[in-house]
Amino acid sequence: MIATRNKETICAISTPQGVGGIAVVRISGRDAKAVCNKVLLSSKGNMVVESFAPNTAHFCCLYDGDRLIDEVVVTYFENPRSYTGEDCIEISCHGSLYVQQKVMEALVAAGARLAEPGEFTLRGFLNGKFDLSQAEAVVDLIDSNSEASHGLAIHQLRGGFSKSIADLREKFVNLASLMELELDFSDEDVEFADRSDLMNLLNEIETQVTSLTNSFRLGNAVKNGVPVAIVGKPNVGKSTLLNALLNEDRAIVSDTPGTTRDTIEDAVTIEGITFRFIDTAGIRQSDNEIENYGIERTYKAIDKAAVVLYMFDITNTSPSDLQEVINQLSAAGRLDNKQLILIANKADLVSGQVFNDAFGTGDTPIFISAKEKMNINRITLRLVEGVKAGRQIDNTLLTNARHYEAFLHILEAVNSVRAGIDSSLPGDLLMVDVRQALYYLGLITGQVTSDELLGNIFGRFCIGK
Amino acid sequence: MIATRNKETICAISTPQGVGGIAVVRISGRDAKAVCNKVLLSSKGNMVVESFAPNTAHFCCLYDGDRLIDEVVVTYFENPRSYTGEDCIEISCHGSLYVQQKVMEALVAAGARLAEPGEFTLRGFLNGKFDLSQAEAVVDLIDSNSEASHGLAIHQLRGGFSKSIADLREKFVNLASLMELELDFSDEDVEFADRSDLMNLLNEIETQVTSLTNSFRLGNAVKNGVPVAIVGKPNVGKSTLLNALLNEDRAIVSDTPGTTRDTIEDAVTIEGITFRFIDTAGIRQSDNEIENYGIERTYKAIDKAAVVLYMFDITNTSPSDLQEVINQLSAAGRLDNKQLILIANKADLVSGQVFNDAFGTGDTPIFISAKEKMNINRITLRLVEGVKAGRQIDNTLLTNARHYEAFLHILEAVNSVRAGIDSSLPGDLLMVDVRQALYYLGLITGQVTSDELLGNIFGRFCIGK
Repeated sequence: MIATRNKETICAISTPQGVGGIAVVRISGRDAKAVCNKVLLSSKGNMVVESFAPNTAHFCCLYDGDRLIDEVVVTYFENPRSYTGEDCIEISCHGSLYVQQKVMEALVAAGARLAEPGEFTLRGFLNGKFDLSQAEAVVDLIDSNSEASHGLAIHQLRGGFSKSIADLREKFVNLASLMELELDFSDEDVEFADRSDLMNLLNEIETQVTSLTNSFRLGNAVKNGVPVAIVGKPNVGKSTLLNALLNEDRAIVSDTPGTTRDTIEDAVTIEGITFRFIDTAGIRQSDNEIENYGIERTYKAIDKAAVVLYMFDITNTSPSDLQEVINQLSAAGRLDNKQLILIANKADLVSGQVFNDAFGTGDTPIFISAKEKMNINRITLRLVEGVKAGRQIDNTLLTNARHYEAFLHILEAVNSVRAGIDSSLPGDLLMVDVRQALYYLGLITGQVTSDELLGNIFGRFCIGK
Repeated sequence: MIATRNKETICAISTPQGVGGIAVVRISGRDAKAVCNKVLLSSKGNMVVESFAPNTAHFCCLYDGDRLIDEVVVTYFENPRSYTGEDCIEISCHGSLYVQQKVMEALVAAGARLAEPGEFTLRGFLNGKFDLSQAEAVVDLIDSNSEASHGLAIHQLRGGFSKSIADLREKFVNLASLMELELDFSDEDVEFADRSDLMNLLNEIETQVTSLTNSFRLGNAVKNGVPVAIVGKPNVGKSTLLNALLNEDRAIVSDTPGTTRDTIEDAVTIEGITFRFIDTAGIRQSDNEIENYGIERTYKAIDKAAVVLYMFDITNTSPSDLQEVINQLSAAGRLDNKQLILIANKADLVSGQVFNDAFGTGDTPIFISAKEKMNINRITLRLVEGVKAGRQIDNTLLTNARHYEAFLHILEAVNSVRAGIDSSLPGDLLMVDVRQALYYLGLITGQVTSDELLGNIFGRFCIGK
């Protein structure tokens, strides 16, 4: 079905919806020139588009039948050197809603059809202009609203992520070669020569796959904002801290365009990283049903968080009290894979040194006064360091749930290969798992694909891209 | 001041605010190439913009310092063949708010400054690319939201209005020549030879100026929607008619983009013309103060309207009753320069023929049933015909309050000239009035101008245009 539809010439308004100085309408397809020829005349009244050289811009008049709709600038991109890989024409018209609508109507009357969301990028992918993960990066780039999320998207768009996948693919292919070597000798019941090479390569693959799979939590957090739960007993000053964190950086929030689109009210962007602070009800043992419900929600907030700020009142908490709560959370597995930051509030009321001595070992708390806004910047510093420490050296992180799912399968395949080798399974059985891994790598880059998968991916795009 | 600022290179996001597939950032000024050279590299990492041929588009990478911001398409327009008449560069980037902001920051860091509203068009005007009335048409075009308002704006943009002004200007100059002829002879106290030529020309000018001045009511109505007051005694069915008019054409309203921006709820676009219906309180004599206040507001609505739909209940109104109300409104001057349409409601309850015979002379009412939605289309037809009949043959209407004000002065000057000739004033005194007229024509096209005037006009533009 996609194949047939791809022969049609499509058009869409590619600029944001609304009124502005100019708007751009994009046309792509093998009849792009013919369609535009029907609606465009030069200022001297001649048909024009057929004679345009590639990558040139021209002043034209756009008509709907006999009616002059607008004076426009038309740029022609010849296949295959265009975004879609097809003949592609961009019409820059005045940014009136009425004019935009009329330009679209004229193009449709001339034989183009309205593009579906992401259809231009879909065509670019199908015509081999970029792989599927790069196409997905286009959406991420458009949605990006902080330095960190932008950095990940542009890295993926430029093929950095694709390169990591290609590296991994090559390693799997090498692994397969080494196994084939064993296959050749298996009838003779001989252990193959380079078993240590194979094990080294498998170890390398396993490290890389595990590391990428684990990077999803951070990658996703960077893309959508790092969820930070503020946890502690009732009345230790959690809400005051939240306000201090937000006030402190409110200016930064408003400096960053796009944050207002978020429905999360309490988000702050610090050094290009967006943090989403989640205030919680206090944790304490209670027989009160309603209060327990609040505590249940607090636990859920902790589970969703990448960072837990555990806050306590330094004037009435002993190190052993503190340790008990932390042990309790740890025992329940609630702190697994999370950064825990201890916050000692009301530090302006006691001598920090006394307390600090008590915390001789383990994580040192950050001593603050939420009310006096003392040392709040130490918290933000620790938060930023935590995120930066988690980054891969080559800046490749999994940010996409689809890629993460594929990597869970790849990790499973790697584990199967190892288990198979350990139990001396024959190479041809191991090959099944290697092929599985290659299949899932192919799903990420789009070497393996389906109409349904493409529909899901490109349906998330805006129209006109 | 304007002169100095015009030497600076400006930049702005020209596409509508928001997130979309792509956004366009425009740079204009003598350093446009130098500024772009600092932020753009080719995909091979070379400086590029200096070598661009005019009107060509290029794929580039845009950097803020060392940081890659986006892959962009850059189009170069060389002075004077650009919108502004200066070197002009358009950067088409991904439509992320973050990316748009970063592109702007990079350009400002490279030496451009943020453009003010309308500054690109202001430069186009100052560089002689178009006259002031054409520049004003750019805003009207962007704001246009119906076929009629779009038609007027594009006519003015293409110079149709400028041509009418130029014609008029030429006639005034000819008038001056004929007067000079008289001046030459005035000492000899001889009536000049071509007095009839002069009077003919003056008549012609007067007709044209009067007609254009009077066209403002219609032009303004077409641009902003034709105000239609629905008037009649209480309970004759005015609100039912309003609903019928709105329901009947609601689909058309939603077909027209931009109407939702209007704050007037009860607007309908019929055959490309927007009508704004104003429901009014019923008119009747009353001693009740509050009721009289309602009637006062009804009169105000009539005064603001271009069309008055006078509605009556055919089952209890005689032609003489009707005539009395109309006479009353006419006598108060309330129907001057307005189209009056009589609407006989509840026509489904009586034999129309009987009543129709009674209206043998004068305007025939339209017989409808608002409740049964009978013949509502006859009202809309009459409304559309009324607007079309008022149009000038060459489609030139005054739509701009600034132009209207100038024309009131021009009309005054014409009247002075005529009065002067009638009282045999010497030609050199008459010339003062002709010069006045030429001055005001020059104000319209921008041959006469001031910083303040330009500030007022271009301040109404959006940024990026």
